[in-house]
Amino acid sequence: MEYRRVKDQEIYDDLSQKDVESLSGRTLSSANTIGPASAGGAKANSSWKLKSVVTLALTLLTSSQAILIVWSKRAGKYEYSVTTANFSVEALKCLLSLAALFRTWNCHGVTDDNRLTTSFDEVGVYPIPAVLYMVKNLLQYYIFVYVDAPAYQILKNLNIISTGVLYRIILKKKLSEIQWAAFVLLCAGCTTAQLNPSSDHVLQTPIQGWMMAIVMALLSGFAGVYTEAIIKKRPSRNINVQNFWLYIFGVIFNLVAICVQDYDAVMNKGFFHGYSFITVLMILNHALSGIAVSMVMKYADNIVKVYSTSVAMLLTAVVSVFLFNFHLSLAFFLGSTVVSVSVYLHSIGKLQPQK
Amino acid sequence: MEYRRVKDQEIYDDLSQKDVESLSGRTLSSANTIGPASAGGAKANSSWKLKSVVTLALTLLTSSQAILIVWSKRAGKYEYSVTTANFSVEALKCLLSLAALFRTWNCHGVTDDNRLTTSFDEVGVYPIPAVLYMVKNLLQYYIFVYVDAPAYQILKNLNIISTGVLYRIILKKKLSEIQWAAFVLLCAGCTTAQLNPSSDHVLQTPIQGWMMAIVMALLSGFAGVYTEAIIKKRPSRNINVQNFWLYIFGVIFNLVAICVQDYDAVMNKGFFHGYSFITVLMILNHALSGIAVSMVMKYADNIVKVYSTSVAMLLTAVVSVFLFNFHLSLAFFLGSTVVSVSVYLHSIGKLQPQK
Repeated sequence: MEYRRVKDQEIYDDLSQKDVESLSGRTLSSANTIGPASAGGAKANSSWKLKSVVTLALTLLTSSQAILIVWSKRAGKYEYSVTTANFSVEALKCLLSLAALFRTWNCHGVTDDNRLTTSFDEVGVYPIPAVLYMVKNLLQYYIFVYVDAPAYQILKNLNIISTGVLYRIILKKKLSEIQWAAFVLLCAGCTTAQLNPSSDHVLQTPIQGWMMAIVMALLSGFAGVYTEAIIKKRPSRNINVQNFWLYIFGVIFNLVAICVQDYDAVMNKGFFHGYSFITVLMILNHALSGIAVSMVMKYADNIVKVYSTSVAMLLTAVVSVFLFNFHLSLAFFLGSTVVSVSVYLHSIGKLQPQK
Repeated sequence: MEYRRVKDQEIYDDLSQKDVESLSGRTLSSANTIGPASAGGAKANSSWKLKSVVTLALTLLTSSQAILIVWSKRAGKYEYSVTTANFSVEALKCLLSLAALFRTWNCHGVTDDNRLTTSFDEVGVYPIPAVLYMVKNLLQYYIFVYVDAPAYQILKNLNIISTGVLYRIILKKKLSEIQWAAFVLLCAGCTTAQLNPSSDHVLQTPIQGWMMAIVMALLSGFAGVYTEAIIKKRPSRNINVQNFWLYIFGVIFNLVAICVQDYDAVMNKGFFHGYSFITVLMILNHALSGIAVSMVMKYADNIVKVYSTSVAMLLTAVVSVFLFNFHLSLAFFLGSTVVSVSVYLHSIGKLQPQK
C-alpha cells in the first residue's frame, strides 16, 4: 500500500467535510469544534482514509471483475443477454444510490445538498459521459476490422496516456516531473505485463487501426475526466444524488439498447433468461465497481483511478494462476516490477503544496 | 543527453585539477588564479565536461563492440585465437597509456603523481580485479550446464543490481530513493528490451543456475566497484599510470592463457593467424573501451558505467536494424522507454549536496 505515503504530502482537495460525514455515516463535528489546526488535521486524515478505502475497493472490485466475466461464460459464450445485464447493473446502481440517500435523509434530514430534485443547469451535462462511452463502444466494433483482440488489449493501454494528458489539460491539475515519468512507466509496465509471443503483431497495425485506437483512448479519457469535472464542480453536493443522475441516463440508454438488440430474445425467453448465480454476482460486482469509480472521482481523481485499475489488472493475473492455471510470463514479472516502481514514484513525487 | 542536468546538482568528486589538465592537455591555471569561487565553478564545469566526454565515449565504443564481434566471425566462428586477441587488447592498452604518459612527461615534466615507479603498497591491489574477472570467466563455462545462452543474456542483467548494491556497501556512496527506483527500472528495462518468445525458459532455470548467475553478478559487480576504489584512492595520481599498472596484469594473465589454451595454434600458424581488418578494428575498439571504462571509474563512477553500457546495448540493437536486418520487437520499444525514463529519473533524482 504505497498510497499510505500520500498521507503526509497530499495537496488536499477542496472537499467539504459534510460530504465526508454523509458518506461515512458518522459525524466529525466534535473534531470541527476543537480549532482550525486540529480540525484541518482531522479533515486531512479523514479525507486520506476515505480516499484509501474507495481506492482499495475499486482495485479489489475491478480485479475480481474479469474473473467473474470468465466464469459467467464457462462454455465460451454468454447464455444471457448482455444488454439486460448492463441494464441491471445501471438499475442496481440507481437503487443503491437511492437507498444510501434514504439513509442520509433519515439521519440528517433533507438539505440543499442532498435533495434529489435538481436544475437543468446541474443535470444537463450528466448524459455527456454516457454518450461518449456509447460512441467509444460503437467504435469498438469497427476497430476489430484492423486489429485483433490481443492487439486491442495492448492498444487499450493508450488510455493511460490520454487520461493523464486530458486530466492535465481539462482539469488544469499539475503533475510533477516524477509523476509524469511514473505515468509513462505505468503505461509501459502494463503493456509489458500483457506481452505474449504474438504481441509483435501490434507493430503491424495499419494506420487506420492506430487512429481509431487513439480516438477511442481520447473518448474514454475524456469521458473519465469529464465525469470528474461534473462531480467535483459541486463538492458539497451529496455523491449519491450525483450518482443517481449519472446512472439514470445509463438506465435509459441501456433500455434503448435492449429494444434495438435483444427485443425478440427478451420477449420470447424472458428478461432474466440464462442468468446464473455467477451472473448475479457479476452484476453486483459491476454495480459496486461503478459506484467505487464515482467515489474515486469525487474523493480522489482520474489518476488514482488509472493506477487502481492497472494494479487490478496485475492482481487478476495473479489470482488467475490459482483459478485457471494461468501461466505468468517473465514479461509479466518485469511489467509488474515497473508498475510497482511507478506507484511508488507517483506517491513520493507529489508536488509540494508551497510550490 | 540527460546527463547535462547533472551539471547543476552534482556532488563534485574530490578530483584534482591537475588530472583534468594532464588529460585534456590544456592548462586551466589561468582559471585557478581568478579566485576560489570562480575556480570552483571552472573546476566543476571542467569535471562535468570530462565526465560527459568519457561517458559518451564509453557508450559509443561499447555499442560498436558487439557489432564488430559479429562482423569478426562472419562465418559463425572465430578464425583467430581469442586468447591472442585478448592479449593484444591488453598490450595495446598498456602502450596507449605509456604513450599518453610520455606526452605528459614532455609537457609537464616528471612529478610524484605521474612517475611510473610505484610501491608495492600502491600496486599490490591491482591484480585483484583481474583475478575476479578471471574467476567469473571460468564460471561462465560451467553456468552453461544449467542455462542456455539467451537465458544467460537475461540473467546477466543481475549485474546491474549487484553493482548498485556493492557500490552502496563498499564505496559507502548514497543514492536517493528516486535513484534506487531508477536502478530497479534500468534492470527491468534492459531485461524487457532483450525479451524474445523463448525468454520464459529463464523462469525454469534450476537453483544451481540461479546461484551461479548471482555469484557471477557479485564477482563482476565487486570487480567494478573495487577498480573504482583503487583508482579513486589516489585522486591526484595520473590516470595513465594507474591504467598501466591495471593493464600490465591483464597482459601477464593473457600470456598464461595463450600458453595453456592456444600454444600449438600460435606455434604452428603464427601469433596473428586469421586476423582481418575487422579483427584489428575490434581490438582497437576493445582497447579504447577499456581505457574509457577506467576514465569513467576515475572521473565518474560505476553507476554511470552501468547506465552507459545499458544505453549502449539499446544503441547496438538500433544500429543492428540497419546492418543486419535485425527485427525490433514491441518488448524492445517498451524496455527502451523504461530505460530512458530510468536515465531521466537518475539525473533528476540526485541527492542535494546539503543533505
